[in-house]
Amino acid sequence: FDKDLYEGNDVPGVVTGLAWTSVGGDILFIESSLSRGRGQLTLSGQLGDVMKESAMTALSYLKSHADGLGIDYRIFQHYDLHVHVPQGAVPKDGPSAGITMLTSMASMFTQRKIKPNTAMTGEITLRGKVLPVGGIKEKILAAKRAGIKDIIMCYKNRKDVEEVGEAYTTGLTFHYVDYVEEVLEIALLQEKVVNPLNFILPEEKKETPVSAPLGVVVV
Amino acid sequence: FDKDLYEGNDVPGVVTGLAWTSVGGDILFIESSLSRGRGQLTLSGQLGDVMKESAMTALSYLKSHADGLGIDYRIFQHYDLHVHVPQGAVPKDGPSAGITMLTSMASMFTQRKIKPNTAMTGEITLRGKVLPVGGIKEKILAAKRAGIKDIIMCYKNRKDVEEVGEAYTTGLTFHYVDYVEEVLEIALLQEKVVNPLNFILPEEKKETPVSAPLGVVVV
Amino acid sequence: FDKDLYEGNDVPGVVTGLAWTSVGGDILFIESSLSRGRGQLTLSGQLGDVMKESAMTALSYLKSHADGLGIDYRIFQHYDLHVHVPQGAVPKDGPSAGITMLTSMASMFTQRKIKPNTAMTGEITLRGKVLPVGGIKEKILAAKRAGIKDIIMCYKNRKDVEEVGEAYTTGLTFHYVDYVEEVLEIALLQEKVVNPLNFILPEEKKETPVSAPLGVVVV
Amino acid sequence: FDKDLYEGNDVPGVVTGLAWTSVGGDILFIESSLSRGRGQLTLSGQLGDVMKESAMTALSYLKSHADGLGIDYRIFQHYDLHVHVPQGAVPKDGPSAGITMLTSMASMFTQRKIKPNTAMTGEITLRGKVLPVGGIKEKILAAKRAGIKDIIMCYKNRKDVEEVGEAYTTGLTFHYVDYVEEVLEIALLQEKVVNPLNFILPEEKKETPVSAPLGVVVV
Amino acid sequence: FDKDLYEGNDVPGVVTGLAWTSVGGDILFIESSLSRGRGQLTLSGQLGDVMKESAMTALSYLKSHADGLGIDYRIFQHYDLHVHVPQGAVPKDGPSAGITMLTSMASMFTQRKIKPNTAMTGEITLRGKVLPVGGIKEKILAAKRAGIKDIIMCYKNRKDVEEVGEAYTTGLTFHYVDYVEEVLEIALLQEKVVNPLNFILPEEKKETPVSAPLGVVVV
Amino acid sequence: FDKDLYEGNDVPGVVTGLAWTSVGGDILFIESSLSRGRGQLTLSGQLGDVMKESAMTALSYLKSHADGLGIDYRIFQHYDLHVHVPQGAVPKDGPSAGITMLTSMASMFTQRKIKPNTAMTGEITLRGKVLPVGGIKEKILAAKRAGIKDIIMCYKNRKDVEEVGEAYTTGLTFHYVDYVEEVLEIALLQEKVVNPLNFILPEEKKETPVSAPLGVVVV
Ligand SMILES: [Ca+2]
Ligand SMILES: [Ca+2]
Ligand SMILES: [Ca+2]
Ligand SMILES: [Ca+2]
Ligand SMILES: [Ca+2]
Ligand SMILES: [Ca+2]
Ligand SMILES: [Ca+2]
Ligand SMILES: [Ca+2]
Ligand SMILES: [Ca+2]
Ligand SMILES: [Ca+2]
Ligand SMILES: [Ca+2]
Ligand SMILES: [Ca+2]
Repeated sequence: FDKDLYEGNDVPGVVTGLAWTSVGGDILFIESSLSRGRGQLTLSGQLGDVMKESAMTALSYLKSHADGLGIDYRIFQHYDLHVHVPQGAVPKDGPSAGITMLTSMASMFTQRKIKPNTAMTGEITLRGKVLPVGGIKEKILAAKRAGIKDIIMCYKNRKDVEEVGEAYTTGLTFHYVDYVEEVLEIALLQEKVVNPLNFILPEEKKETPVSAPLGVVVV
Repeated sequence: FDKDLYEGNDVPGVVTGLAWTSVGGDILFIESSLSRGRGQLTLSGQLGDVMKESAMTALSYLKSHADGLGIDYRIFQHYDLHVHVPQGAVPKDGPSAGITMLTSMASMFTQRKIKPNTAMTGEITLRGKVLPVGGIKEKILAAKRAGIKDIIMCYKNRKDVEEVGEAYTTGLTFHYVDYVEEVLEIALLQEKVVNPLNFILPEEKKETPVSAPLGVVVV
Repeated sequence: FDKDLYEGNDVPGVVTGLAWTSVGGDILFIESSLSRGRGQLTLSGQLGDVMKESAMTALSYLKSHADGLGIDYRIFQHYDLHVHVPQGAVPKDGPSAGITMLTSMASMFTQRKIKPNTAMTGEITLRGKVLPVGGIKEKILAAKRAGIKDIIMCYKNRKDVEEVGEAYTTGLTFHYVDYVEEVLEIALLQEKVVNPLNFILPEEKKETPVSAPLGVVVV
Repeated sequence: FDKDLYEGNDVPGVVTGLAWTSVGGDILFIESSLSRGRGQLTLSGQLGDVMKESAMTALSYLKSHADGLGIDYRIFQHYDLHVHVPQGAVPKDGPSAGITMLTSMASMFTQRKIKPNTAMTGEITLRGKVLPVGGIKEKILAAKRAGIKDIIMCYKNRKDVEEVGEAYTTGLTFHYVDYVEEVLEIALLQEKVVNPLNFILPEEKKETPVSAPLGVVVV
Repeated sequence: FDKDLYEGNDVPGVVTGLAWTSVGGDILFIESSLSRGRGQLTLSGQLGDVMKESAMTALSYLKSHADGLGIDYRIFQHYDLHVHVPQGAVPKDGPSAGITMLTSMASMFTQRKIKPNTAMTGEITLRGKVLPVGGIKEKILAAKRAGIKDIIMCYKNRKDVEEVGEAYTTGLTFHYVDYVEEVLEIALLQEKVVNPLNFILPEEKKETPVSAPLGVVVV
Repeated sequence: FDKDLYEGNDVPGVVTGLAWTSVGGDILFIESSLSRGRGQLTLSGQLGDVMKESAMTALSYLKSHADGLGIDYRIFQHYDLHVHVPQGAVPKDGPSAGITMLTSMASMFTQRKIKPNTAMTGEITLRGKVLPVGGIKEKILAAKRAGIKDIIMCYKNRKDVEEVGEAYTTGLTFHYVDYVEEVLEIALLQEKVVNPLNFILPEEKKETPVSAPLGVVVV
C-alpha cells in the first residue's frame, strides 16, 4: 500500500532498487552500515534465502576486487557489515536486488556518493556478470512515480523495456550493462559523502607476497 | 488482561513502548542490561524474527553512530548487551518497537535518563529513518490510561493521530519525527541516572587511522 | 504422581520453587552447579523456551548486579554454570520459576545458604522487577503439603492468596515483593554453606576505568 | 531380539545399565573414552534429548566434584570425552541411565575398575541425588538372565523390588542409594585398570585462589 | 527458458558444466572466487545437499593433492573460497557437477586458464575417481547448441554417447576419463590468466616434518 | 542398478564395505582423506545419523588408541579428516559400515596398505567390540560377484554364514572377529602405500605427564 519516493544520496550505502510485488512495482532502499568488529555480515529485513545468497555473492565480489576499487582489505576483517532492507516486516526474496546490494556495499566501503535519482535492478554472479530479471514493466512505472531519472539494468532486459510503450519511458534514461564494473562506474560518483567515515585499522603484520603458485612446490 | 502503568525513569535502559494486541493497545517496557563480556547480544521475551532483526538493526545503528553519541566503541566489544521485553511468556513481534529498543540501548550505553512519562512507537531503518506503524488509535488509548504524557512517533503517523478524536488526545503531547536522531534528542535527557555504571575497558592497542580509501591502493 | 517434600538447605544452589501442573500444584527444585570453564551456561531438565529465556535473564541480572552482591565478575568468565530442574523427563515451561532460578544462581555464586523451609514463585524482568504468576491456590497447597513455612511471591499476587481460604494458609508466612533485591534479601542467608567453594581465578589484566561516556569522544 | 550378557570389568569406562523396552528388560553398556582435545563432549548411540541432558548433568556433577574424586580438573579442559551406548541403530531415551553414565565417566576419568557383575539404574540430579525409575521388574529379570549379581538403584525403588516375588530376586544383592556418592563408593573399585591411561597435561598457569566472595568488592 | 551460450575462458575459476533439467539439457557456469580470509567455504546458488557435499569433496581432494598441483597449502588457510552457480533463484542438486566444481576451484587456486569451448559432467569421489552420470543425450544437445567443442565425462558414460546418433555428436570431441587427474590435465591449460592473483601469505612457522608414523611412538 | 567391482589397494584410506539395499547386496567403498587443518571431521555421501555416529565412534576409538597404532596424536589436531562414501546421491545409513570406516581411517592415519581383495561388515562400539549385522546372505553374494576373496565380520554372524549354502561361499575366506584390534590386524598390512604422506606437524609444547589421578588432589 505504501509507495515510496526517491530520497536523495546524502547517506553512504543507501541505494534505490526496483521491486516487483503482487500489487505492482515499487522502489526499495538497500541500506548498509559498517561498524568496528571482526568481519561479520548481518542481513535483515526478512530476506529470503536467494536474496541472502545474493548479498553474500556481492560481498565476495567486492572482497576479491577490493584493490581495483581502492578498498583496504583490512576493512573486511576489522569492520562488521550490516545490510538492511526496509520495511522490516515485509518478506523479500529473489536475485534481482543483486546489483543494488553490491552498489550499496561498495558505496559504504568507499564512502563515495551514489548518482542522484538513480535506481537499478539485476542479478549478479560471482565473476561479476549482470543477469536479466523479471517484472520490468511494473518496475519502470514504479521508478517513474518515485522520481527516478536513471535506471541501470542488464543489456538482456533491453527488449523488455522496448516492449513497454514510450509513453511510460519518457524522462527515464536506461543504462544497459553486462558487468558489475559498469554498474559501479555509472552509479558510484567520484565524490565522497560529506563527513566520510575514517576507518581505524590495526598495523599490518609482515606477510610474504607469493606469485601465482603454478609449478611451485612449497613445503 | 494485565494493563500496565508507567513506571518512572530511574533505571537506565528501561523505555516505554506502545503495543497493539488483539485485545487492544497496551504499553510495554523494553529493558536493556550490560555486563562485562565479549560483545554478545542476547534477546529474550519470546520475540519474533522481525522484532529480533529490529533489535539487531538498532544495535548496528548505535555502533556506527557511537562517536556522535559519545559512546566508547570498546564498550561494544567488552560488554554483553541483553534486551528483554516482559512478560516473558507473551509472544511479541513486528517492527514497531524499533525506536523503543534503540532508545533503551542508547540509554544503557550512555547511562542517560529517559524523559519522564514518555512512550514511543515506530520502525527504524539502518540509516536512521523512522517509519510509520499501525494501531495508532489503540496505542494512544493505552498510553493515556497508563499515565503517559508525551508520545514520539513517525511524522507519517500524524494523519492517524488526527483521525482519532480530540477527546482521546487531550493531555497528550505528540512528537513527530523522521529520523532516529530526533527521537534520541527528545527522549534521552542530558542528566545521567543515579550511580551510573563505570565501564571497565582494556588499554587500547595502537591502530592506524586510515582516511576513506578512495583511490588508495593498499598491499 | 510423585509429590516431593522439602529437602533442606545444606547444598548451595538448590532452591525450592512452586509449580502448577495439570494434576495440581507441586514443589520443584532448581539446582545450580559451577565448574571451571569459560563462562558457558548449560540448562537441562526439558525446559521450554520461555523457561530458558527466564534463566538467561536471571543470569544477566546477576552479572550486571555482581558488585552489589559481592560476586567477583571473573567467576562469570572462568566458570561454567549449569542449571538443572529435576525430574529430567518431565517437560517444564513458563516464566514463574524466574525468581527461583535467580536465587539458585545467586546462592551458587555467593556460596550463601538459602533460608530454610522457603519456597518461591514469580517471573523476573531484566531490570529486577518481580511479576505475578498464576496457579497460586494449587501452589500454596503443594507448599504446605511439602513442609514449606515461608513463601515469596509478587505483591500483585497478594489478592490471589487472600482468595484462598485461611484454612489453607495457616502456618505459612507470605513475603510479598516487587523487586528481585527483596527476594535475595529474604532468601539468601548471610551464612555461607559448609565447605564453600574456593574459586580459582586468573590474575587480572590491567584495565582502564572509564567514567560513563557522555560527551566523551574516544578515538 | 538380542539379549546381552555381562561382559567383565577389564576396560575402564564400560558400565552395565538396565533398560526397559517394549519387549521387556535388557542390559545395556555405557562406554566412555577420552582422547587429547579441548574439552568437547560427544554423545552417540541414537540418544534422545532426555538422555543427552542426563549425560551433560553427569559430566557437570563430575566437574564440580572433581577434587573429591581425585580428578585433575585440567583433564576436562585438555581431553575430549565420548560416551557411546551400543547398539548404534537402536534409539534410546529416558533419564534412568543417569547413574550408569556418571559411573562410566568416573571410571574413565579415574581409571578405576568397576565392581564385577554389577548393574545399575537410576536418574541423577545435578546436586547428586538419585531418583527412582520405572520398569524395575523387567530390569531385574534381565539382570539375572545376563549374569548380574549386584544391582544399584534408588532407595525409593525398594518397594518396587519387594513387589517382585523372591523367586526372581534370589542370587541378586540390591544396593539402595539416595546420593551419587554412594553409587560411586559401591561401584568404583580402588583398584585401577591394567595399563591405566597416563594423562598428558600442560603446565599450569599461575592463578589466584579467591575465597568465597561474600562481601568482597572486586574492581 | 533461458538457454545459455559458452562465454570464454578469460576469467579464472569459471568452468562450463552440463545440466539436466526437466525441460531438457542446459549448460551452466561454476564460478569460484578467493579473497583474503580464514579458510571459509561459501556455497551459493540454491544448491541442494548432494551438490554441497560434492563441493566439499572437491575441496578436500584439492587440499590433499595441493603439492602435486603446485598449490601453496597456506592459501587454503588464509583465503576464503566462494563457489557460486548462477542463476541464483534456480534450485540445483545432484552429484554430476563434481568435476566441474573441482576444475573451477583448481583454476582459481592455480590461476591457470581453462581449455576454451570445453564443458564437462561427472561425479567425483574423494580419492579422485570420476563416476558416470545421467542425462547424457540432453546434455550433448545443450553443449552443441551452446558452442561447446570438447566434452569431458566418465569412461563409463561412453556407451551413452554411442547411443546418441552421430548426427548429434559431429563437431564434438569426447574425452573419457576415469580419474580427476585426467580431467585437470585436459581442462587446465599451463597458461595463466591475464593479471593472475598474487597471493599474500604470512611467514611460515617452523614445523617438524614427520615421516609416516608406522611403528613410531610419540609422547 | 550399478553393481561395483573390487578396485585394488593402491590408495590409502579406501576400504571395501558390504551393503544391504532393497534390491540386494552391493559392495561400497569408504574413502578417507587428510589435509592440513585443525582437526575437523567432514562426512559426505548422504550419510544418515546412525552412520555419522558410527564414523564419530570410529574416530574416537582411533584417537584413544593412537599410541598402540603408532599414530602421532598431533595429526588429529593439525589435519582435517574427510570420509566420503560414493555414490554421492545415494542415501546411506545404518551401523554396519562401522569397521569399514574405522579401517579406512586407520589406513589413512598410518599410510598402511589394505589387504587385497578384502571386504568387511560390522558395527563397532567405542570400546572396540565388533557387533553382528544383518543382510549377510545378500552381502556374501555381492562380495563374490565383485571379486572379493576375504570377508571380515563379527563372530556372532558365523551362524548366518553357515545358513548360506556352501555353493555360495566357495572361494571366500571368512574371518570372524570380536574386537576391532583383530580387524586391523587382518586388514591393515605392514606395508605402507607407495609415496606415503609425510605429515607436517608443529613443534611440541612442553607438557606434564600425569599418572592416573586416583587419590591425587590438584589445585
Ligand atoms: Ca513500499
Ligand atoms: Ca527476479
Ligand atoms: Ca501488559
Ligand atoms: Ca507494526
Ligand atoms: Ca514432583
Ligand atoms: Ca506461570
Ligand atoms: Ca540388547
Ligand atoms: Ca525411566
Ligand atoms: Ca540457463
Ligand atoms: Ca546426476
Ligand atoms: Ca553400487
Ligand atoms: Ca545393519
